Amino acid sequence: MTHPTPTDGRSHLDNGGRAPWHPLARQAFLQALDDGWADPRRLHTEGRRAAALLDGAREAVADVLGARTEEVRFTPSHTASLHAAVVQVARARRRHGHDVVVGAVERAAVLHAAEHAAGPAGRRVTVAVDGYGRADADAFVEALRHDGVALAALQHANGEVGTTQPVEAVHEAARAAGVPLVVDAGASLGHAVVGPAWDVLAADPADWGGPAGIGVAAVRHRARTVADGPEDPEPWAPGGISVPAAFAAAVALQAVQADRGDADGRRRALVDQVRARVAQIPDVEVVGDPSDRLPHVATFSFLYVDGEALVSELDRAGFAVGSGSACTASTLEPSHVLAAMGVLTHGNVRIALDRSTDAADVERFLDVLPGAVARVRDMLGVQGL
Amino acid sequence: MTHPTPTDGRSHLDNGGRAPWHPLARQAFLQALDDGWADPRRLHTEGRRAAALLDGAREAVADVLGARTEEVRFTPSHTASLHAAVVQVARARRRHGHDVVVGAVERAAVLHAAEHAAGPAGRRVTVAVDGYGRADADAFVEALRHDGVALAALQHANGEVGTTQPVEAVHEAARAAGVPLVVDAGASLGHAVVGPAWDVLAADPADWGGPAGIGVAAVRHRARTVADGPEDPEPWAPGGISVPAAFAAAVALQAVQADRGDADGRRRALVDQVRARVAQIPDVEVVGDPSDRLPHVATFSFLYVDGEALVSELDRAGFAVGSGSACTASTLEPSHVLAAMGVLTHGNVRIALDRSTDAADVERFLDVLPGAVARVRDMLGVQGL
Repeated sequence: MTHPTPTDGRSHLDNGGRAPWHPLARQAFLQALDDGWADPRRLHTEGRRAAALLDGAREAVADVLGARTEEVRFTPSHTASLHAAVVQVARARRRHGHDVVVGAVERAAVLHAAEHAAGPAGRRVTVAVDGYGRADADAFVEALRHDGVALAALQHANGEVGTTQPVEAVHEAARAAGVPLVVDAGASLGHAVVGPAWDVLAADPADWGGPAGIGVAAVRHRARTVADGPEDPEPWAPGGISVPAAFAAAVALQAVQADRGDADGRRRALVDQVRARVAQIPDVEVVGDPSDRLPHVATFSFLYVDGEALVSELDRAGFAVGSGSACTASTLEPSHVLAAMGVLTHGNVRIALDRSTDAADVERFLDVLPGAVARVRDMLGVQGL
Repeated sequence: MTHPTPTDGRSHLDNGGRAPWHPLARQAFLQALDDGWADPRRLHTEGRRAAALLDGAREAVADVLGARTEEVRFTPSHTASLHAAVVQVARARRRHGHDVVVGAVERAAVLHAAEHAAGPAGRRVTVAVDGYGRADADAFVEALRHDGVALAALQHANGEVGTTQPVEAVHEAARAAGVPLVVDAGASLGHAVVGPAWDVLAADPADWGGPAGIGVAAVRHRARTVADGPEDPEPWAPGGISVPAAFAAAVALQAVQADRGDADGRRRALVDQVRARVAQIPDVEVVGDPSDRLPHVATFSFLYVDGEALVSELDRAGFAVGSGSACTASTLEPSHVLAAMGVLTHGNVRIALDRSTDAADVERFLDVLPGAVARVRDMLGVQGL
């Protein structure tokens, strides 16, 4: 099932972390806006109706995660989920230690939260990755065995380069060591099977075709957390969240789960095609694991190219792509993920296919890319190679 | 301009803090979902379009507040705005002191944030209120003059009882003392003129007919803040917010501002009528200032009545009302606001009129209320008085 990309005549190939809404999400949002606009903490009919919709949304997400409804909560954003997960688990574990073990290619939100949670009494222990961006499972397990570890965090897969991480092996070792594992499934849920190897899990509705401005956090019954910040009845989302957004997020997740097999097989074939064709362009590095990877992400770095210039050049040609790890309106910072992998950090392009992306979009992109790269190299005064 | 309440056959009179969406908010949301679903931090056309919508939303809110666009930001909720405002201003003022001066009837979010920000080195200094719930301006000014005050917080008006607060006098004294003033305009903006007497202001889109799950914070150029928690490029909203929600919030605010004069005169007359008629029911206290008040809020407490039972009784009769200050699905806690005012804390009902509430809704409510109160009193075994 495909739906038109929202911007006519353009191909949006930057759907990692923020994809267009699934059509069913839009429907669900409007329905929940009629039935569930009220405050779910209120006692009257309208409040109870909103509370029922919110519970239904939690149940639907729990079902996909293989969790219990009461283990799932909504937060203001994926970053908020990751911050709260790391900080709250660390607080609950203070008497065991202050160190936080993380993979080198975790999201910036995890790295910063780990730094914050470790505080002056502990340290962030960063486990190196290989050239594909995969954390060394043995080194991770070794780091878990030291005294003083409060928690560990490992992503399910890397959203920037697509490589999956050894979460099963690391979770097994973490359980043996009594260390809770926070798993960032922000790039995976909705695209790949996320198993039960986590104690706290964070996932990102905006990534799977749900709304932005809402996040998911699941906390296993066995995992203890202690709230941080000002006292609040809802420490994961002080002030509450939008019930229609939560409901739309859950409906979108159910929808993408339902046709994940088809959609992801199709996207995986397109990504393979992209990786093979791009590899033929001179002076390019196609990065990330070629097979153990997310089905929809393809990343490559061009020598003698400025990433921002290439994004703009492709944008003019009608293609939205991502680049770098921390983008603001005016600057692209070199990706800490690519740096940790030891690959080219500049001239980097990531495409993340939506379910609506079709073979024609990809074909047109592959036709346009070599010329765009050549033009940017020309601007920089680099001779065609 | 009226629009139907979303629940057919019922009157929703609990519109403080969470009102049904203004019809223009719905329109604006859907338009912004088409044009601004992308990540506003991205460099491509879709990202820049989302960024332009977000800037437009900030500009519209700034215009209503008499602030500069760059002083306005969106947050995940009104509570999140208040937490961040108090905590971030306190951090920036550490070398001046740790005490936080607050009114006794501030929102729980402000009281808890003040406690948190004061920490072990400081204290929360609580200024008493009179029987109407108005903070004593002289006592507030006196408290500001002590050494060691990091900041002060005073609401523009109390959302539970409607009474306005002496923000102008307190702001003048705060400026003279060099103490930044955080003003909670969560119950006021969209309903009353909120003047320039603030250094940091928080306001609540869900209260004026915009979406829930988003808040507004405005920080004057002169007010310094230091971010708390894990490092993040957007410390007021880690992970960002929903651009369509921000846009809808701004459009709703513009719309309610445009017909505020008419709508509020009409609502003020209805509230006067409610207060007069309710006062005739035996053993009732009609609370809050009779004239210096919000136009849409009316609050009263009944002797020999359980608040939760009365909310349920009125709900069965087709009326949604509020009660208590901290409601969860199963319990009503006595209101700290009513307690600070020295009035009855139990058997409390608050109605907050929406712009769509009409005279017939109110008339039906006033017809039903005395019987509902009598029935609840009968259940408790209280003889009719």
